[in-house]
Amino acid sequence: MEDNAVQLINQPLLPHRFEIASMPDHRATAAAIRDMIVRGAPAIGATAAFGLVQVYLEAQGRPDREAYIRAGYELLRATRPTAQNLFHALERIAAVANAAPTDQQGTAARVAAEKFADDEAAASRRIGEYGAVLLKDGMTVLTHCNAGWLACVDWGTALAPIYVAHRNGVKLHVLADETRPRCQGANLTAWELMQEGVDVEIIADNAAGLLMRRGEVQCAITGADRIAANGDAANKIGTYEKALLAREHGIPFYIAAPRSTFDPQCPTGDDIPIEERSQDEVLYMAGLDDAGGFGRVRVAPAGARARNPAFDVTPAALIKGFITECGIIPATAEGIAHLLAN
Amino acid sequence: MEDNAVQLINQPLLPHRFEIASMPDHRATAAAIRDMIVRGAPAIGATAAFGLVQVYLEAQGRPDREAYIRAGYELLRATRPTAQNLFHALERIAAVANAAPTDQQGTAARVAAEKFADDEAAASRRIGEYGAVLLKDGMTVLTHCNAGWLACVDWGTALAPIYVAHRNGVKLHVLADETRPRCQGANLTAWELMQEGVDVEIIADNAAGLLMRRGEVQCAITGADRIAANGDAANKIGTYEKALLAREHGIPFYIAAPRSTFDPQCPTGDDIPIEERSQDEVLYMAGLDDAGGFGRVRVAPAGARARNPAFDVTPAALIKGFITECGIIPATAEGIAHLLAN
Repeated sequence: MEDNAVQLINQPLLPHRFEIASMPDHRATAAAIRDMIVRGAPAIGATAAFGLVQVYLEAQGRPDREAYIRAGYELLRATRPTAQNLFHALERIAAVANAAPTDQQGTAARVAAEKFADDEAAASRRIGEYGAVLLKDGMTVLTHCNAGWLACVDWGTALAPIYVAHRNGVKLHVLADETRPRCQGANLTAWELMQEGVDVEIIADNAAGLLMRRGEVQCAITGADRIAANGDAANKIGTYEKALLAREHGIPFYIAAPRSTFDPQCPTGDDIPIEERSQDEVLYMAGLDDAGGFGRVRVAPAGARARNPAFDVTPAALIKGFITECGIIPATAEGIAHLLAN
Repeated sequence: MEDNAVQLINQPLLPHRFEIASMPDHRATAAAIRDMIVRGAPAIGATAAFGLVQVYLEAQGRPDREAYIRAGYELLRATRPTAQNLFHALERIAAVANAAPTDQQGTAARVAAEKFADDEAAASRRIGEYGAVLLKDGMTVLTHCNAGWLACVDWGTALAPIYVAHRNGVKLHVLADETRPRCQGANLTAWELMQEGVDVEIIADNAAGLLMRRGEVQCAITGADRIAANGDAANKIGTYEKALLAREHGIPFYIAAPRSTFDPQCPTGDDIPIEERSQDEVLYMAGLDDAGGFGRVRVAPAGARARNPAFDVTPAALIKGFITECGIIPATAEGIAHLLAN
């Protein structure tokens, strides 16, 4: 946050162009979350936290102050339905701000949001340190979607252990699922890993099964958007398929996520709302055209229809463990209850 | 085949443009197979059969006749490594031609190729009739890649049962995996089914798991490129993942294929060579640009690398049965031996 504007990396332009987008008010910040200028559960949470700071700052001195804050809160809350971090962040900032005297709520929210973001970055770092223990020299690690520093405040979740291990001199090879329809794996994960000098190859989402059958994958790590009380985890569509393949081939499948991703109010994965996004994400593919500009191509016949659920649920039984900022815990109700109680 | 040219639907232009490409000699026909102007195991087989007819016709009267035929045979044989129909067709035509007097070999090959193509079309039709019995009103059927009439001489393999059931008035809903990297599902299967008036929706390859978990899929049918003696089946990359998901959810998974796809010389799926294709198929996506021309967009960062295995192997244990022109048979060594013995 600079002055009263939220500064975001404009992720749809990556990996082809690096640009900072400035969101001058909370409505712009909400639109940035909805339109996926920013994405990734922890990054959505931190962005929403600063969006709520904007709400409190904008509300100062308005006659309809309380209604304005309520509406702003609800607007931010309605931007995406699946990521738990969004709701968690809003509740946390609102609780701190509302406890402050009226004329200091903006400042209190800002301090709380900064602490929230710093805590998330520190959590990512610790996730990296705990997770790095799992990664041995020469391993190939499969990941899905992007759960790196672009998805978080810093470091990342699924990629944090890879970054920590890499900086410790452990030689790793990463297979990045391209992650249709939005290709965050091909666009973002490959780019992030290349920036950090990690050896990475992109594969079609269809290819993991063959490569696992051939013994070419030793570990799989993804992030999560919400984890239910029983350990079922919602993450980018396709995660479930990889987890099932991993079990079939005896490959440990981990989910890396901070405590803010866990939702103790949500009993099982079936209770997590799954966002359905525009058909066009499937019918078209966006990227850099041969002239070097941004373009898209239509892959489907004119008039064709598509389904586009953005997330799926991986049952707890397929998850070897959660890599959290408090250590690696089992994907069980007891493990999660203990994590959240401390 | 018109005069001495092989006429093919130019499939990379579909669904955006329908055009017939004419292959004047066997080298052009071989290139068309290699470059996937024609694709789909049965269609590859029939095209190679006519390509070999061209070889025999071109060889007539040449001093190096036998060497020319041998080289032409090998050129066609080397176009694609996985589809069994290719090898089967070439062996069949060569056996007939070589048994004829030298000056009649071209004609003998042509008659044999025409019979081969007619037999394949008749086999597809019967696959459709046997398979249609599995499809009940209101079912949703998942399919992967394209195994319709574009992949075959007529009717198709995986789609033939759907066409027959649809013409019989059975209401079906089809989910077509887009099938990255080449998107034959989005490009070809959706287009074929729309032409026939069958209700179809395209999904990202990642979405099948969620939809199966929700109970939205009742049956899965794909084609195959080669089926080993033990029932393991090679098909388009990603098929294995769908078969594993189907088993997990108690959904019957069938493979539809004519006898020409079975390879009794190949003991198991591990013995089937898997083609690795260009990285660019993963790094780029081709389609219709917003100006209505053919274009492609790059989805990966500059300098990124990709793996691109084109097929995977589905173990026999995951296959409920093979829908063949002789009926539905179990995916076992005994079932296959019996099929091929009759």
